Amino acid sequence: MSPPPPEFAVTALTASPAHEFVTVIGAGAMGTCCAKLLAENGQTVRLLTRDEGQARELSDRRENRRLLPGVSIPESILISHDPLTATAGADRLLIAVPTKYLRDYLSQLAPQIQSQLMPRTPAISVVKGIEFGSFRRPSEIIRETLGDRPVTALGGPCHAEEAANRLPASVVAASDTPGDAEAVQALMNSDRFRVYTNEDLIGVELAGALKNVIAVAAGICDGLGLGDNSKSALITRGAAEIARFGAAFGADLATFAGLAGIGDLITSCVSGHGRNRAVGERLGRGEPASAVTGDLLQVAEGVNTVRSVLPLAEEKRIRMPVCREVHAVLFEGKPAADTVDALMTRPPGGE
Amino acid sequence: MSPPPPEFAVTALTASPAHEFVTVIGAGAMGTCCAKLLAENGQTVRLLTRDEGQARELSDRRENRRLLPGVSIPESILISHDPLTATAGADRLLIAVPTKYLRDYLSQLAPQIQSQLMPRTPAISVVKGIEFGSFRRPSEIIRETLGDRPVTALGGPCHAEEAANRLPASVVAASDTPGDAEAVQALMNSDRFRVYTNEDLIGVELAGALKNVIAVAAGICDGLGLGDNSKSALITRGAAEIARFGAAFGADLATFAGLAGIGDLITSCVSGHGRNRAVGERLGRGEPASAVTGDLLQVAEGVNTVRSVLPLAEEKRIRMPVCREVHAVLFEGKPAADTVDALMTRPPGGE
Repeated sequence: MSPPPPEFAVTALTASPAHEFVTVIGAGAMGTCCAKLLAENGQTVRLLTRDEGQARELSDRRENRRLLPGVSIPESILISHDPLTATAGADRLLIAVPTKYLRDYLSQLAPQIQSQLMPRTPAISVVKGIEFGSFRRPSEIIRETLGDRPVTALGGPCHAEEAANRLPASVVAASDTPGDAEAVQALMNSDRFRVYTNEDLIGVELAGALKNVIAVAAGICDGLGLGDNSKSALITRGAAEIARFGAAFGADLATFAGLAGIGDLITSCVSGHGRNRAVGERLGRGEPASAVTGDLLQVAEGVNTVRSVLPLAEEKRIRMPVCREVHAVLFEGKPAADTVDALMTRPPGGE
Repeated sequence: MSPPPPEFAVTALTASPAHEFVTVIGAGAMGTCCAKLLAENGQTVRLLTRDEGQARELSDRRENRRLLPGVSIPESILISHDPLTATAGADRLLIAVPTKYLRDYLSQLAPQIQSQLMPRTPAISVVKGIEFGSFRRPSEIIRETLGDRPVTALGGPCHAEEAANRLPASVVAASDTPGDAEAVQALMNSDRFRVYTNEDLIGVELAGALKNVIAVAAGICDGLGLGDNSKSALITRGAAEIARFGAAFGADLATFAGLAGIGDLITSCVSGHGRNRAVGERLGRGEPASAVTGDLLQVAEGVNTVRSVLPLAEEKRIRMPVCREVHAVLFEGKPAADTVDALMTRPPGGE
């Protein structure tokens, strides 16, 4: 049972650097970061904010002080809360709204911007989650609310706090529409932000969502002070189970060995920037799940993702012991201290 | 090109907990840690030290103050520098000597202990390196110097500093001798030190050696302050290239997706305990390779491993861009700052 070696073929950039007018929807850390990266790459960028207050604050200060402090927003970016102003003439949308709010927000937006968009105006999704209840991936929600159009998902290790500060990052652009990922590559690729392409939209989206659950578990490890040996073992097992899940839902397993899979998983599990890891760390320190509330829990994608994924995994008999334990701590009142013990004391045997 | 999902089958412990008399050869951090783990598991343990001074110091203090401070060495462990005393009647050897010294040390030892050992007395190797010049794996060096016998290699994320302090660890015991890995499992497995078995001795040894080279590169990332996004991308690419190398030398690719592969790689690249990462960090901060000397360089297995591996990879046309850059910094005078840039500015394309 030898999988082929993961390949990172070095091929030439398939499209020349392009110029487009891109509307970024969502002015959180990732939306602001992407707007800046696009503007620095010579694209015309408008940033659509949640409301007028946010638009005014970002326009006045040219900085997102709460979510991306210290990062200046280029003057060339027009910031607006008005959907018509932000999307008039847009060649492409980049959507950066947490999964929890995505359907409602885009559903409200759709009738307002319909007249501005071409029927096939493509979208880039940087959303990493799964909708609770429906088990829809972000690209599916985007198509269901804004109409069928090419959607390219960005995956891979990319904390906004670093990429916005011009630290190097390597990401994957994945699309099921021929040529669309390459167009995104041409639009966003730079020396500091390397964009690779991939045809596995399902795999990149599932990997991006599921890694957040493993990151909660990694945070629990941190909170319990279990050390690097344990955490690496946990990440290894987590990588295996999310690949198993992905394979059962049509993803290409090679994706899970790449930047969008193990790459994003590692950074989410070890980086101090990760919100999901931070949720886990608080749980590991003994805070009950009910106490870890507010913004952190709202936008920690792993929380709703595990609620969505676990029943499906159990229905399809896919073993996901790490997700199982995260679910137990978050929703079944299991003390975090019992969680990792449960994982470590499985009967030994063949790996 | 879909690799099958890595499997971590949960099977029953195949042998009942065993009692044996084990001689641990080498009283560094890992040797001391293993001696302690074995003794705590009820085994009779003798620890063979380098010289009389080390034996006396460890016996008097019951602590390895330099390499494993704060960890008490159980009174039941007999510590001796005398090969005859240490090995008389041993059921099994556990060898914990850095690769660089392994052949010379065991060659000197062999005639002294030959009379004590049964011809087939098995050995456990916790050595993670490749011999420079010969490209021999530790199990091969052990067989060449001590005579043909079963050898089981321990792999997986296991910093001695943590395991000796009873923090949980999960490791892999790999052997090409039927039943031997299971015997090691029966000997060492505990609630806090989970031992899984595997038949891929070559894969576990190559993964354990090669991860040290990637850890040097991860340290360079740290020294240059490139952030978590970059480091995760580097680890991902490193994992791919060591799997490619392993496959070309007869290893099972599934090993590289498991504890001995990505698991050990992650902990070596992110943990503050790692010597190879520490070497890389100093290089990344601008110290020339020639200045990173002394003990650290002597026992940082990645340094000699990359010298051994890179010419072979180039001969066999196995792409190893991360190893290539580590070699350039260590042995070709390339500034570390140019290294990661070289990796990041490859032409983009398909992942």
